[in-house]
Amino acid sequence: MKVFEVRDEWTMDHLRLGERPDPPPPAAGEVLLRMRAAALNYRDLIVPLRGYGSMTGTLPLIPVSDGVGEVVAVGAGVTRVAVGDRVCPAMIQSWISGPPTADRLRGTLGAPLDGVMAEFMTLPAETVVKVPPHLADEAAAALPCAALTAWSAVVTEGRVAPGDTVLVQGTGGVALSALQFAKCQGARVIVISSSDDKLARARALGADEGVNYRSVPEWGKRVREIAGRDGVDHVVELGGQHTLPQSLRAIRAGGTISLIGVLSGGTLNAYLGPIVTRQVRLQGVTCGSRDGFEAMVRAIALHRIRPVVDRVFAFAELHAALAALAQGAHFGKICLRH
Amino acid sequence: MKVFEVRDEWTMDHLRLGERPDPPPPAAGEVLLRMRAAALNYRDLIVPLRGYGSMTGTLPLIPVSDGVGEVVAVGAGVTRVAVGDRVCPAMIQSWISGPPTADRLRGTLGAPLDGVMAEFMTLPAETVVKVPPHLADEAAAALPCAALTAWSAVVTEGRVAPGDTVLVQGTGGVALSALQFAKCQGARVIVISSSDDKLARARALGADEGVNYRSVPEWGKRVREIAGRDGVDHVVELGGQHTLPQSLRAIRAGGTISLIGVLSGGTLNAYLGPIVTRQVRLQGVTCGSRDGFEAMVRAIALHRIRPVVDRVFAFAELHAALAALAQGAHFGKICLRH
Amino acid sequence: MKVFEVRDEWTMDHLRLGERPDPPPPAAGEVLLRMRAAALNYRDLIVPLRGYGSMTGTLPLIPVSDGVGEVVAVGAGVTRVAVGDRVCPAMIQSWISGPPTADRLRGTLGAPLDGVMAEFMTLPAETVVKVPPHLADEAAAALPCAALTAWSAVVTEGRVAPGDTVLVQGTGGVALSALQFAKCQGARVIVISSSDDKLARARALGADEGVNYRSVPEWGKRVREIAGRDGVDHVVELGGQHTLPQSLRAIRAGGTISLIGVLSGGTLNAYLGPIVTRQVRLQGVTCGSRDGFEAMVRAIALHRIRPVVDRVFAFAELHAALAALAQGAHFGKICLRH
Amino acid sequence: MKVFEVRDEWTMDHLRLGERPDPPPPAAGEVLLRMRAAALNYRDLIVPLRGYGSMTGTLPLIPVSDGVGEVVAVGAGVTRVAVGDRVCPAMIQSWISGPPTADRLRGTLGAPLDGVMAEFMTLPAETVVKVPPHLADEAAAALPCAALTAWSAVVTEGRVAPGDTVLVQGTGGVALSALQFAKCQGARVIVISSSDDKLARARALGADEGVNYRSVPEWGKRVREIAGRDGVDHVVELGGQHTLPQSLRAIRAGGTISLIGVLSGGTLNAYLGPIVTRQVRLQGVTCGSRDGFEAMVRAIALHRIRPVVDRVFAFAELHAALAALAQGAHFGKICLRH
Repeated sequence: MKVFEVRDEWTMDHLRLGERPDPPPPAAGEVLLRMRAAALNYRDLIVPLRGYGSMTGTLPLIPVSDGVGEVVAVGAGVTRVAVGDRVCPAMIQSWISGPPTADRLRGTLGAPLDGVMAEFMTLPAETVVKVPPHLADEAAAALPCAALTAWSAVVTEGRVAPGDTVLVQGTGGVALSALQFAKCQGARVIVISSSDDKLARARALGADEGVNYRSVPEWGKRVREIAGRDGVDHVVELGGQHTLPQSLRAIRAGGTISLIGVLSGGTLNAYLGPIVTRQVRLQGVTCGSRDGFEAMVRAIALHRIRPVVDRVFAFAELHAALAALAQGAHFGKICLRH
Repeated sequence: MKVFEVRDEWTMDHLRLGERPDPPPPAAGEVLLRMRAAALNYRDLIVPLRGYGSMTGTLPLIPVSDGVGEVVAVGAGVTRVAVGDRVCPAMIQSWISGPPTADRLRGTLGAPLDGVMAEFMTLPAETVVKVPPHLADEAAAALPCAALTAWSAVVTEGRVAPGDTVLVQGTGGVALSALQFAKCQGARVIVISSSDDKLARARALGADEGVNYRSVPEWGKRVREIAGRDGVDHVVELGGQHTLPQSLRAIRAGGTISLIGVLSGGTLNAYLGPIVTRQVRLQGVTCGSRDGFEAMVRAIALHRIRPVVDRVFAFAELHAALAALAQGAHFGKICLRH
Repeated sequence: MKVFEVRDEWTMDHLRLGERPDPPPPAAGEVLLRMRAAALNYRDLIVPLRGYGSMTGTLPLIPVSDGVGEVVAVGAGVTRVAVGDRVCPAMIQSWISGPPTADRLRGTLGAPLDGVMAEFMTLPAETVVKVPPHLADEAAAALPCAALTAWSAVVTEGRVAPGDTVLVQGTGGVALSALQFAKCQGARVIVISSSDDKLARARALGADEGVNYRSVPEWGKRVREIAGRDGVDHVVELGGQHTLPQSLRAIRAGGTISLIGVLSGGTLNAYLGPIVTRQVRLQGVTCGSRDGFEAMVRAIALHRIRPVVDRVFAFAELHAALAALAQGAHFGKICLRH
Repeated sequence: MKVFEVRDEWTMDHLRLGERPDPPPPAAGEVLLRMRAAALNYRDLIVPLRGYGSMTGTLPLIPVSDGVGEVVAVGAGVTRVAVGDRVCPAMIQSWISGPPTADRLRGTLGAPLDGVMAEFMTLPAETVVKVPPHLADEAAAALPCAALTAWSAVVTEGRVAPGDTVLVQGTGGVALSALQFAKCQGARVIVISSSDDKLARARALGADEGVNYRSVPEWGKRVREIAGRDGVDHVVELGGQHTLPQSLRAIRAGGTISLIGVLSGGTLNAYLGPIVTRQVRLQGVTCGSRDGFEAMVRAIALHRIRPVVDRVFAFAELHAALAALAQGAHFGKICLRH
């Protein structure tokens, strides 16, 4: 079968199209998937450079964690899914249920485990989740990491209630899914972006307010004014280093900041004082469990939510797709089709 | 000022229109309200008969717990509200924040404290809540008990998540508010009623499914089938004695039944087995705190939710209004206008 | 190997000592245990009579859900445990983590799955839990059902805090474990029993107060007085039908009743009113997950807690042991040794 | 009456003994306290320098937030306490119940409100809490800020369970109370300190393990090894800038760090990565509500817990007491007696 893999050396150049033997029939409890689409995340830019150190795994490595496939064979005893079902592999294969633990967080597709850039994947039936029929393959491919991370932030951990105000940073895949789920929970959503055009598109997706952080560098104060009362109830923090100080201005006393991404830099450099005196919670969020995935899919099916797809590349165009991601001009997900 | 009060004896006949002296100017921390509308709850049928025993209070008693008024004077130091604001008195005056305690649950308007069937009320400023401008007086009057009880059930205690399935019993005031809030949280809502016409109206308000419990006496099983999986995640239990056994069939393992009303009888007569073996939670819900009221009002304002008003009577027609409530043919709230 | 099994018919008489073939070596991911001790629960009196209907499983059935064994062989890939480890099988084999679901609650040892009254058991490695060295085999055998149910009630679901007051009913296995865990959480514990002698022994185990429900039939009121304030924060409800009305008197507004057992009868026959107006929570509790088991074992190891063993029978004396259980004079667990 | 107050200028020198008129009899709902003891916190070193900016309040200001007094008069309608009761004023006067809000966090004794360094204080009866008889005045004085902050961290917010491992930093007042409460919840407690002598004294108070951070600069790793598994469940973070990076090494995936103090510096300078990828929670904690205070007092009374008092100064020796605090050699609280 055709695969993309990082071979011989950890560089972007060594990420190449290649061949691996077709997988054998699935063993008991396993399923065999023919992959149909993939979706990129920022981690896919970091993995080929061995950016997670020893946790990146070993060479050769098939990259990319998000994808969707069709079940083409099932092993003995499999009842969760059937041949013909369209399913996503859970990104964190070892996290089925319950709270996260070090052991559960270890087994992630696309590094250190082989990812979805292959024609076929063999997986335990327990770790795949059926996707709703209203989703195109590309949109379904965005569920395992981007959408589930947003779900964990605003639903599982965030417990956003109707009437709450949620601040979402940017218009990438996690951000737009967070916007969709927060609206679905009855929240008021404020989006920040560097582009008025993207803010307009976020509004079309349901955002109540938008702030351009280029034209309003002190956007934390502005967001707080828009929120009214004492600030927003919840921040979906995707920027990290350069945005967190502003987020700490925007958040209300007792509010929660979901720490998800560190796009603007990985060092937290903020005054601790306000976190303490205003009793703010910073909650790290990393993807979610398979149980959370299934709960999310029920909401997506009921509300016919569609992850936003920016652009679709062919399977062989992985490098072009990664370059588009690195450029950062996208609105929603960058996907690949088999 | 004009008031309705139960005088001399605890019978419906002794509930009469009368006069009390106009209240003095509000003391420090107090507000004076000119009442504009009231809304009836089942407890208003029970109070005149001293149905809560010694907890009903003492004669004479001004009945009815739900209402809305306009602030016409404020005492020294009041900043929460201003003259001209339209506000609801919190039904449980002594429950400002935090979990319920015996002390907090004691001070309820309409029994044992004087209720809203008076031209004026004097209250601590801390215990009144501003209402959104989009609500007519009659709809606003329904907030303190019916709507807040529904909010406490599905939001504060229920923590319903998008994609969850919620079963709502009937089409009274609490039921329809629960339907509205559950939809606002992204839930799928199933309503049961004895009338196909009321089910159609519930669907128009957002209900996803309806079951006529007259034509389907084993409605628990039907609801479970509609819910799919193992049953509904949440039941808003308003019937009590005769409905709870069916609710226990409809609920999924690990699900929650909010025990609010006992319209069909006050004795729980159910097999305990399934509660234990399926780890079901029965959560008593009684109104809510002022903090909860304010959170609810934010959601109502954001989503322009309107409590459903069935019929409006004049202030002097209290007996006719109570008779209409007792008849049980209403869809939503029965209200009174000053 | 030697086994006890219910054969041919669902009667106590048909529960007999017999032979089954020795199990083959464990497959990948499995472990083989040589069983060392078992502990009885009330359900073991019900199972041979097919008391759970179709959920009791099919004949022949090896009964009893609680036991401990030694790992004598492990299949390929097993790292959780090693040969020589002393482990308990999780009673609910299918509940590893997360909240309960119908699927997870299905696979229970001792009915419908074969139980621990066998010389050997083959189980998935994921479903066994190492036990602390300070526990004798008989005490360790009491962990999977009795102790874990108590843990789920007062820790996982109950979230008892230091200074809370907990009411525990009786002096059976679940009750005494609940007493031990609640003390370990810093609670004040009140025990009820029909025997002053048992109350004295409960005090020796840490109980702060005891009430004899024979000499004080209105014990709910007495417990409430002892608790002070408005009643106890938490009730570990083991009696069911005849005790629940008293428990509803003893509990404070906003308190929680863990509904575990129905020893005095399986029909709930209580006024719903106080549950609603005092916002009481009734939480069904059925054993717990393997994750909960592991958390409990950490606490047991740290505090060197020992489940109380009343009496130990030889493996072959199962009928005598069950008779002793039925008699109800025990204090703690009735166990069997291989 | 005698008071200490910062007069004319915000410097330590302008903190002087002076006179204010004796307070009038308490108004309705108020109580008059004759103060008996005070206890110092680090904030008391910062307040005289106007270290909280405009939130420090205005001159003249009576400093110090923690104290205990005797009720010498009650206003009309006061039933919570009676003359002769020994009570602590809640440090955050405006936070009675429920979660924190900006409004609730505003009214803090000792800045911006006048503090406890006065012979008499007049306070709303709702904001004082009776203290258990087993506590000496000096120990009772330590409850409002130091002990309650520890309680909020490990009980209210932390929800520590028996068998959990808790890391406590240092041996100041908050640290030792956190140690006492965590032990009371059944946790295993590891303490770090720069002094082997203090570690020995912490062990005498119940600490299970101690690490000297002077001799083990990479103490995060050592703590993780001691904790076993993947690290500690909970960190009571009192150092801030210089300790947090080590705390992030010590904490397990999914664990919680209670961010309370910033003794070593107020700037968070840590890699965000591990917070995200290991789903760590950082929870700011600032004192607690009066409800929390009452719950804590119940636990303190039940377990006869005594806050550790390092040294007691006379009322007039405030400057010497503050100097002792600044020196940092204390173990437990530095107190003053009237």
